[in-house]
Amino acid sequence: MTDRAEGRLAPIMFYYDYSSPYAYMAASRIDDIAAAHGRVVHWRPILLGAIYKLTGASPLLDQPIKGAYIKRDMERCARLMGLHMEFPENMTFAEIAPARATVWARDQGEDQARKLGGALLNHCFGTDGNIRGVDEVVQVATGVGFDGAALSAALASDELKQRLRDDIDAAMSAGVCGAPLFIVDEEPFWGADRLDHVERWLATGGW
Amino acid sequence: MTDRAEGRLAPIMFYYDYSSPYAYMAASRIDDIAAAHGRVVHWRPILLGAIYKLTGASPLLDQPIKGAYIKRDMERCARLMGLHMEFPENMTFAEIAPARATVWARDQGEDQARKLGGALLNHCFGTDGNIRGVDEVVQVATGVGFDGAALSAALASDELKQRLRDDIDAAMSAGVCGAPLFIVDEEPFWGADRLDHVERWLATGGW
Repeated sequence: MTDRAEGRLAPIMFYYDYSSPYAYMAASRIDDIAAAHGRVVHWRPILLGAIYKLTGASPLLDQPIKGAYIKRDMERCARLMGLHMEFPENMTFAEIAPARATVWARDQGEDQARKLGGALLNHCFGTDGNIRGVDEVVQVATGVGFDGAALSAALASDELKQRLRDDIDAAMSAGVCGAPLFIVDEEPFWGADRLDHVERWLATGGW
Repeated sequence: MTDRAEGRLAPIMFYYDYSSPYAYMAASRIDDIAAAHGRVVHWRPILLGAIYKLTGASPLLDQPIKGAYIKRDMERCARLMGLHMEFPENMTFAEIAPARATVWARDQGEDQARKLGGALLNHCFGTDGNIRGVDEVVQVATGVGFDGAALSAALASDELKQRLRDDIDAAMSAGVCGAPLFIVDEEPFWGADRLDHVERWLATGGW
């Protein structure tokens, strides 16, 4: 599908949550996959907690039996991808500050949202760094060239809170039932383990 | 890992639920994958309801937003596999009778459990046939050569009920957190979408 106004292929929507190791894995590959097919990726952080309220799901790692399996699967998937991954000490954490910061970065361009999003995920899962609080998020953002004072001010604003809420509502209306989730030309693919389907869909136009 | 007593490679354990289209997909491929690596598969039906009680999960297709996505994913996965699949009219049904029947068939050999399991899944998902009740299960079993009268008698016995319960308890103790789930040499793989990992694990011995 082309964006007729610009004569370009439509972007791939990438919905993710900053507390998810699977998001880190997906983020490490989605831009390259998209680029190989002439696409760009629009990074859209969401809060899984908001979606769980609607679907009735709960964090995978918190579930009896399943939590142990999921941790094993995450580590096995990362090894297979050749991706270094650290588990944050406390896996279920409030991922509000990094999500809001990414909404703010988007005002400077989709590429800036991508840059900040990648930096935050790498800090968290690549180095076991903290991205829970405003100070830590501002520090990571400053480290990759963003204006820390402007970001701090924005993170304190009600406007940014509302914009993240609106993004999440829009995502749920678009059928985002979990994360990471990709939408390619209105076709949703849920899970880092659907990247192979995303690639094939881009190459073939669907099946 | 070899079974030293018999000098053979250990079987692959295949845990599945008769109400799951993903189980149908997995069942259509697992024996061929195993055979290519000199393995056999031991089919072990379980009841997802029993596992959900422990993990707190609920049937995927019943969840808001997620249900619609999952149906789409199931159909897309089946198309990609070149597998004809029908959705039973009422997707969430009691799958107790087919599971008990498969425990009974196992007394005649693992290959017999496999034969009956495959016939039941194909009847349900290949032809939109009914496998909910005892009569329907006996009819399918008779169609592939089992002794219908003996199966009917067994399905009415308390012993068979208890054996299925014991199987499910053993599965949960082995870490079965959902289904379909495969265990290869103590390594669990959950989901029809992990068949590629199962194949790679068999080929490489792990990573």
